[in-house]
Amino acid sequence: MNTPFVGKREYFGGIGRIPYEGVASDNPLAFKHYDANRKIGDKTMAEHLRFAVCYWHTFCNAGHDPFGTGTRVFPWDADGAPLARAEAKMDAAFEFFTKLGVPYYCFHDIDMAPDHDDVAVYESNLKHMVALARERQQATGMKLLWGTANLFSHPRYMNGAATNPDFDVVARAGVQIKAALEATVELGGGNYVFWGGREGYASLHNTQMKRELDHFARFLTMARDYGRSIGFQGNFLIEPKPMEPMKHQYDFDSSTVTGFLKEHGLERDFKLNIEANHATLAGHTFEHDLQVASDHGLLGSIDANRGNAQNGWDTDQFPSDLYDTVGAMLVVLRQGGLAPGGLNFDAKVRRESTDAEDLFMAHIGGMDAFARGLEVAHALLTRSPLEQWRAERYASFEAGTGRAFADGKLSLDDLRAHAMAHGEPTQRSGKQERYENLVNQYLVRV
Amino acid sequence: MNTPFVGKREYFGGIGRIPYEGVASDNPLAFKHYDANRKIGDKTMAEHLRFAVCYWHTFCNAGHDPFGTGTRVFPWDADGAPLARAEAKMDAAFEFFTKLGVPYYCFHDIDMAPDHDDVAVYESNLKHMVALARERQQATGMKLLWGTANLFSHPRYMNGAATNPDFDVVARAGVQIKAALEATVELGGGNYVFWGGREGYASLHNTQMKRELDHFARFLTMARDYGRSIGFQGNFLIEPKPMEPMKHQYDFDSSTVTGFLKEHGLERDFKLNIEANHATLAGHTFEHDLQVASDHGLLGSIDANRGNAQNGWDTDQFPSDLYDTVGAMLVVLRQGGLAPGGLNFDAKVRRESTDAEDLFMAHIGGMDAFARGLEVAHALLTRSPLEQWRAERYASFEAGTGRAFADGKLSLDDLRAHAMAHGEPTQRSGKQERYENLVNQYLVRV
Amino acid sequence: MNTPFVGKREYFGGIGRIPYEGVASDNPLAFKHYDANRKIGDKTMAEHLRFAVCYWHTFCNAGHDPFGTGTRVFPWDADGAPLARAEAKMDAAFEFFTKLGVPYYCFHDIDMAPDHDDVAVYESNLKHMVALARERQQATGMKLLWGTANLFSHPRYMNGAATNPDFDVVARAGVQIKAALEATVELGGGNYVFWGGREGYASLHNTQMKRELDHFARFLTMARDYGRSIGFQGNFLIEPKPMEPMKHQYDFDSSTVTGFLKEHGLERDFKLNIEANHATLAGHTFEHDLQVASDHGLLGSIDANRGNAQNGWDTDQFPSDLYDTVGAMLVVLRQGGLAPGGLNFDAKVRRESTDAEDLFMAHIGGMDAFARGLEVAHALLTRSPLEQWRAERYASFEAGTGRAFADGKLSLDDLRAHAMAHGEPTQRSGKQERYENLVNQYLVRV
Amino acid sequence: MNTPFVGKREYFGGIGRIPYEGVASDNPLAFKHYDANRKIGDKTMAEHLRFAVCYWHTFCNAGHDPFGTGTRVFPWDADGAPLARAEAKMDAAFEFFTKLGVPYYCFHDIDMAPDHDDVAVYESNLKHMVALARERQQATGMKLLWGTANLFSHPRYMNGAATNPDFDVVARAGVQIKAALEATVELGGGNYVFWGGREGYASLHNTQMKRELDHFARFLTMARDYGRSIGFQGNFLIEPKPMEPMKHQYDFDSSTVTGFLKEHGLERDFKLNIEANHATLAGHTFEHDLQVASDHGLLGSIDANRGNAQNGWDTDQFPSDLYDTVGAMLVVLRQGGLAPGGLNFDAKVRRESTDAEDLFMAHIGGMDAFARGLEVAHALLTRSPLEQWRAERYASFEAGTGRAFADGKLSLDDLRAHAMAHGEPTQRSGKQERYENLVNQYLVRV
Repeated sequence: MNTPFVGKREYFGGIGRIPYEGVASDNPLAFKHYDANRKIGDKTMAEHLRFAVCYWHTFCNAGHDPFGTGTRVFPWDADGAPLARAEAKMDAAFEFFTKLGVPYYCFHDIDMAPDHDDVAVYESNLKHMVALARERQQATGMKLLWGTANLFSHPRYMNGAATNPDFDVVARAGVQIKAALEATVELGGGNYVFWGGREGYASLHNTQMKRELDHFARFLTMARDYGRSIGFQGNFLIEPKPMEPMKHQYDFDSSTVTGFLKEHGLERDFKLNIEANHATLAGHTFEHDLQVASDHGLLGSIDANRGNAQNGWDTDQFPSDLYDTVGAMLVVLRQGGLAPGGLNFDAKVRRESTDAEDLFMAHIGGMDAFARGLEVAHALLTRSPLEQWRAERYASFEAGTGRAFADGKLSLDDLRAHAMAHGEPTQRSGKQERYENLVNQYLVRV
Repeated sequence: MNTPFVGKREYFGGIGRIPYEGVASDNPLAFKHYDANRKIGDKTMAEHLRFAVCYWHTFCNAGHDPFGTGTRVFPWDADGAPLARAEAKMDAAFEFFTKLGVPYYCFHDIDMAPDHDDVAVYESNLKHMVALARERQQATGMKLLWGTANLFSHPRYMNGAATNPDFDVVARAGVQIKAALEATVELGGGNYVFWGGREGYASLHNTQMKRELDHFARFLTMARDYGRSIGFQGNFLIEPKPMEPMKHQYDFDSSTVTGFLKEHGLERDFKLNIEANHATLAGHTFEHDLQVASDHGLLGSIDANRGNAQNGWDTDQFPSDLYDTVGAMLVVLRQGGLAPGGLNFDAKVRRESTDAEDLFMAHIGGMDAFARGLEVAHALLTRSPLEQWRAERYASFEAGTGRAFADGKLSLDDLRAHAMAHGEPTQRSGKQERYENLVNQYLVRV
Repeated sequence: MNTPFVGKREYFGGIGRIPYEGVASDNPLAFKHYDANRKIGDKTMAEHLRFAVCYWHTFCNAGHDPFGTGTRVFPWDADGAPLARAEAKMDAAFEFFTKLGVPYYCFHDIDMAPDHDDVAVYESNLKHMVALARERQQATGMKLLWGTANLFSHPRYMNGAATNPDFDVVARAGVQIKAALEATVELGGGNYVFWGGREGYASLHNTQMKRELDHFARFLTMARDYGRSIGFQGNFLIEPKPMEPMKHQYDFDSSTVTGFLKEHGLERDFKLNIEANHATLAGHTFEHDLQVASDHGLLGSIDANRGNAQNGWDTDQFPSDLYDTVGAMLVVLRQGGLAPGGLNFDAKVRRESTDAEDLFMAHIGGMDAFARGLEVAHALLTRSPLEQWRAERYASFEAGTGRAFADGKLSLDDLRAHAMAHGEPTQRSGKQERYENLVNQYLVRV
Repeated sequence: MNTPFVGKREYFGGIGRIPYEGVASDNPLAFKHYDANRKIGDKTMAEHLRFAVCYWHTFCNAGHDPFGTGTRVFPWDADGAPLARAEAKMDAAFEFFTKLGVPYYCFHDIDMAPDHDDVAVYESNLKHMVALARERQQATGMKLLWGTANLFSHPRYMNGAATNPDFDVVARAGVQIKAALEATVELGGGNYVFWGGREGYASLHNTQMKRELDHFARFLTMARDYGRSIGFQGNFLIEPKPMEPMKHQYDFDSSTVTGFLKEHGLERDFKLNIEANHATLAGHTFEHDLQVASDHGLLGSIDANRGNAQNGWDTDQFPSDLYDTVGAMLVVLRQGGLAPGGLNFDAKVRRESTDAEDLFMAHIGGMDAFARGLEVAHALLTRSPLEQWRAERYASFEAGTGRAFADGKLSLDDLRAHAMAHGEPTQRSGKQERYENLVNQYLVRV
C-alpha cells in the first residue's frame, strides 16, 4: 500500500489510505469487499475491475441542479487565478486518487484546465495542466483510463457540436477534440471517449436529422484519423445516452450506436462506453445494454453509476445495487474482461452530501458493490449450474437439423418438413423463477 | 411439520412438504432463509410474515396475456361440471398450501366458485364452495387472510362496478359484495379487500369524476355497514392501483386513498392493502407507499410481488429483490407488525414457467426473499446505527424553540427572531451514501 | 391599446405593442386567436384567461441546464451593483408586460430583489424593489397575480425549508415567507403561492416522513395566520409537483395535496395552483389534475406550460398543445372561472431560443393556444351535444332507486333486491371514440 | 361511390356507405375531412393515404384484457363450425370495408382461417379462406395491403418463434410463415409483415441473446428466399416494438431494426412498418421513428394508431391527435409517399365501446385525423416558410469550407484553422417556439 500523494496542502485531512477491513468492520471509511490484490479466478480484483475516478463530478461539481446553486465549497477552488486553482484542484485530485487506492482516472479538457474562448489561451492552459498531470502520474503511478472533450457546456454548443447546423461551431468543436486527443496521448490514455451531450435535437421541426448524422460520422472519422496520426492506439469510445440535455440524442442506446458505427465503417476503431443510468433512461436494464454491446464485440468500457426507477433524468448516483453489479460483471467476465477499458465512476454524491468524507464513502460504496458483484458473478459462472442450464435450453441447435438451421443450410420447405415429421413441439418451461432464486442464493452465500 | 393435505387425487406428485435447508443447500425445492419457527426478536418468522397464497393466480390463471392464450393446463380444471372442477381446484389448493407450509390464503368469490349471471345460482355456488372450504380449513389448520369479490372481469363491469354510470350495474355489484362478505365471515377471514379494478375512467370526456367518487364512498359505506351487521370484526382494506385496466383508477396510491377515506369518514373501518407493483406503477417505491400508509395508521396488509422498471404494466412477478423486502420489513417492524394483515403473494409465475414445480419455486423464492428481508431489517433496527443516525438529524426539534415549533406554539415573527439571533444555519450533510453503504453491508453480513 | 412602458432604456427595441391580427396573418409577432376584448359568452377573453408573465424564467433564467451554462445575455443584468441591476430588470419586465399586453405578473422574492445571507440586507433589498414595483404597477395598470418566496435555490435549503430536519433552517425560511407575504400584500397580490421544491426527500433511509409533514402543516398554518393578520384576503395556493429537484416531493399531485390540506384543517384558506408539466410528471393528464382540484372546490390558479411525453423532467415548455388547452378550459369554464387566480406562464423559452423576440413569440404562442382552447371549450359546452351526452350516461341516478342510492338511503340488501328484480343489466357503450371525434371536429370548425 | 358488399346477412344494418359531409356536419357517421377523391397536390386523398382496415382487432377482438373477458358479441362468431364462422366473419369484414370506403385490408393467417395444431388442417383451412377472400376482392375491388402470420398467440410460441431456444418450435413457425407468404401472394398483397411479438426475452438470465438474433436473421433470410421464389415482389416489413408481451423485444425501434437489417444483409428486401404506439413505448415520438426509417430509405408502411402518455402498455387507440398525423404526413410527403405501403389501422375500439356503430365512428375519426394531417402537412410544406427556415439553418454546409467538411475533404487541422480564422461563432437561435406557433396556426387556418 503506497503512501498517498499530498500536494502543497492536504485537502482531505484526517483521512488516510482507505484499508480493506471486510464485511464485519463498522468503519465507514474501510472497504468491506474490495481487496485489491485478492485473486478472483486468475486475476486480482484490481485487474478485473480497473476502477477510475472521474475528474468532473468529484472535483468540479459543487452540486448545482436546475433549481439551486452548488452546495459544496471546494477549498481548491476558493480563490486565485484560474490556472492556480486548476493546479490546486489537481493536487486535490491526486491526493484523493491515492488515498482511495484506485489505479485510473478520467477527465474532460476543461475539467483539468481553464476554458477560454480564445483558442490559443485554451490550448496553452491545457498543455500546461497536462504537463503537470504527467508529472503527477509519474510520481504516483496513477494512469489515465480515458480523456475526452467537453462539447456541451459552453453556450456555443447549444445546438450541437459536431452536429451543429452552423459549420463555424463544428470547426470550433474540432479545436477541442484535437487538443483533447493530444492530451490523451500525452498522458498515455488507453481510451478516448465521445459523449454527444448536445448531438441530438430539441425539436424535429427545425432539424434535418439525416444531415446531422452524416456530419457526425464525418467528424468522428476525422477524429479517428487524427488520433491515429499522432500515435493513439487505444479504443475510441462512444457513450450512448437517449436524451438529456437534448430532447432526443443521436447516440440513443447500444443498438443505435452499434448500427451507426457499422453504417459508417467505424466499428474497427470505435467501441462503446456504457453508462448504467443512460441505459435505464433508454428503457433498458444496465445489463441489457452491456450485453448488446458485448454481443457485437463492442463493449469497451463502463461508466459505473445508477439512476433510480422513479426519476426520469440522469441522477448519476453511485452504484450500490448488487443485482446491477452482478449483472454487469456476468457480461464482463463472459467476454473475458474490459481492458483496456475499465469501470469509471461517472457518479456524483448527492447535492445534500456536503462533507468531504462523503466523497470517500460514495466511492467506497461503489467499489464494494462492484467487488461483491464480481465475487457473486464469478461464483455463478464457475460454481453454480447457471451456464449449464442456459446451454441445455439451446441444445437442439448443437447437432442435426437444428445445427443445419443455425448454419444457414435449411429452407422454409425444410422447416415445414421437420414440423410435419415431429408433430406438436414439447412444451419447455423457461424456469425464470429458478434462475432468480439461484441469483438470490449466491448473493448471500458466496 | 404437518402432513400435507391430499384430496381425491394428488396434483403435485413428487413434491412433499417443503423443508428449510439453509443457504448452503442446492435443493431448489427447499427454503434457504424461511425457517418458520425461528425467532427474530420476540416473534417467529411465521408470526412476523403471515404469508398467504392467492387463489386466483396460482390455481385459476393459466397464463393468458393480451397477445396469447394460456400456457398452463391445470389438471383440476380439465373436465367435469363447473362445481366439480371447483371442488377439484380446492383440493389442489389445499394440497399446495400445506405442502408449501403457508398459514393463510386469499380468494375472490369467483376464483373459488363458478360465476353465473343468475344471482341465485351464483349465490348457491358460492355457498357450496364456502362450506367445503370451511371443512378443509378445519382439517388442515389453514386460515383465510382475506376474501374479496371480483367486480372487474365480467363485461357488465366494463364501465365500473360501484362507480358505474348505470345504477343497475351498481346494484348487481352489491350482490357480489354481499355474498363475498358473508363468505369471508363464514371462513373467519381477518380482512376484506376492495380492489377497484374498473373504478376509474377510460376517458375524462364521458366521465363525471366527482359523482362517481361519491357513489364509491356510498357503496363502501353500505358494505361496511352490512359487514359489521353480520359480525365481521376485521379490517376492510382498499388496495390502491393507479391504472390498468382503466386509463386512470380512483384508488391511485396510498395518499389518494388515505385522503378519500378521511373525506368520507371511513378511516376507522378501512385500512390499505399495499401492492408493490401498484406502488411502482404510481411512480413510487414500494417502501414509500407502505410508509405513507403506515404514517396514517392505515397500513393493513401487503400484496407481495414486484414489477420491473422497464415495463409499464402490472407484471405481478414474485418478489425477489432484497432491497424491496428489506425496505418493506423496515416499515412493518417499525409499526409493530401487520396482524391481522399479512403478506399475500399476489404474484404469478411467468407465462413461460409451465412446470408444476415452478409454482413451488416461485413461492419459495418469494418467501425466502421476505425472510431474508426480515432478518436484515431486524438487524438494521436493532444492531446497526440506523435509528440513532435518523434521530440525530431531527434532534433540534426535541427541545427548546424547535420543540415549541413542532408543538405549534410559534408564529412567523418568532421564526424570524430565531433566525436573526442565530445567523446563517450550519450546513449538515444528508449522508445518503453512508446509509446506502450500511444497508449493503447488512444485506451480506447478517 | 395602451402605450407600452419604457424605462431608462428600451430593452426590446423594434418590438411594439403586440397586435391581434387573426389566423390569416403571417406576422409572427401578432396574435392569431387572442383578442383581449372579444367576448366569449359573458366575459372577454382577457377576463376569462387572466394571463400572467412570470418574473423568474423570463427575466432571470439565462438558460443554464445540468450540462451547460446560460445562453442568453440579459442586457439588464450586464453590470452595476445588485440593486441597480434589479431596477434595470424591473424596467425590462414592465416593458415586456406592457408590450405583450398581459394584465398580471408573478414573482419570487429573490427574482425581484437581490438575495443576501444577512437577513436585514435581504429585507431591505426586497422593500426597495417592492416600492418600485408598486410605482410601476400604478403607472401601467399591471397587477400582481401572486407572490412567493424562493425556498429552494439557496444551499441552506438543500434538505428542505419548512421540512428541514434542522430547526435553524425552518426558522430562516420563515424570514423569507414573512417578507414575501408582506410584499404580496403591499403589491395587492390576489394570491400567495407555496411551491415546495425541496419539501420532500432524496432518500427514505434518512427521513422521518410523518414528522416532516407535520412540520410542513405547522409552517403553513403560521404563514396563513400571519398573512391574515396583515390583511391578506386572497387565496393561499399550494403547487403540487411529484419530484425534481428531490427524488420525492410531498406535494405529489392534486389528490395528495387535497388530502393534506383537509387533514390539517387548511382547506378554507388554501387552494391549488396546478402546473401542467407537474401533473404529467405525476402520471396524470393536465386536465385530470385540474379536475381533481376543481371537484374539491380547490382549483385556485394555473401554471400554464407543458412537458413532453419523452422526457422525464420538468421541461417547462410554453403551452402549445390545443388538446391540453381545450381540456383545461373545459374545467375552468365548468367551475365558472379562475378568479382571483389566473393563467401564469411558468414556462421558459428553450435554451437554444436566444433572440429577444423569442420571448415574445413564446408568450404569443401560449396565449393563442389558450385563447383557441377557450373558444373551442366554450363551443363544446354551449353548442355541441357534449354536456347532454354526459348527463344521459348518469340519468339512472336522477330519480327512483338510483337517486335513493346516491342519497345514501339504501343498504346492500336493497341493492341485491334491485338486482334480483331487474336481471342482468343492459350493456351501454362508453362511446369514447364519438367524444374524441367531437373534440377534433370542434378544434377545427369553431 | 360503390354499393357496399353484403353477404348472406347484413351485419351492420342501418349503416350505409359513409359519406363525406365536411366539418360543418353533425352526422357522426360522416367524414369531416376525408374526401377520397379530393386532390392534395397531385394525388387524391385516397392515393396519399392508402387506408387499410385490420382484420384482427376489428373482426376478431371481442375486448378481453388482462383483467376481463370480451365485451363485444360478434354476430358472425356466434355459432357454427369454425370454417362457417370464418366465412361469416369474412362477409362481415367485406361489408365493413365497403361501407367504410377503404381500399385496403390486412390480416394474420389465423384471423382469417381457423387455427389448428395439425399442420394439414391449418393449411387447408387457410387455403379455403384465401380462395374465398380472393373471390370477395374481385367482387368488391378491395386489395390486400399486407399479410402476416400470427406467431405469438399459441402457447407453443411462448419462448419465441424464430428465436425459440427449441428448434422444433422454430420449424413449426416456418409452417405458418410459408403458408402466410403463399396466401399473401395469392391475394396480391403488396407487402408482407413480421411483428416479432415473442421474439425477445422474459429474462436475460436464461437467454443467449446473440444466438437468438442470429437465428432470427437466418429465419428472415429463409422467408425472403421463399417469398421471392414464389413470386412475391413487394416489400418485406419488420414492425418494431420494444416490449410487450415480452419484457424486451428484439425489434426495439427503427434504429435497432435498421442496424439489424444492414448487419444481416437484408436491407434490400426488408423495410419497416412503423406503429405509432410502438414508437412511443420505445421512448420516441411517432414522427421520430418514422423519420429514422425514412432517412435510411426504409419507411415502408405505417400502423396508424396511438397510445397515451400515461399508460405504459400498447393501448392501440385509434389515431386522433392532429399533431401526430401532421407529423407523420410531413415525413410521408417529404419522402414522396408510402406506396406500396399504406396506413393500416392497427387499432381497436375501447373495451367499453360495444355498439356496432362504434367500429365505424372509430375508423371515421382515424381517417379524418389523417386526412386533416395531410391537408395541414401539405400546406406547411408548400405554402408556409417551414422548409425555407430549415434550409437556412444549414446554409453554411452548402458551399465553401462547410461544403468541403460535409464532403469529407477536411481534417481536424483544417477545422482548427477555420476556427482560428473565424473567431467565436455567432450565436444563432434555434427558434423552436416560432416553428411551434406556425404548426398551430396551420392546424386551424388551412
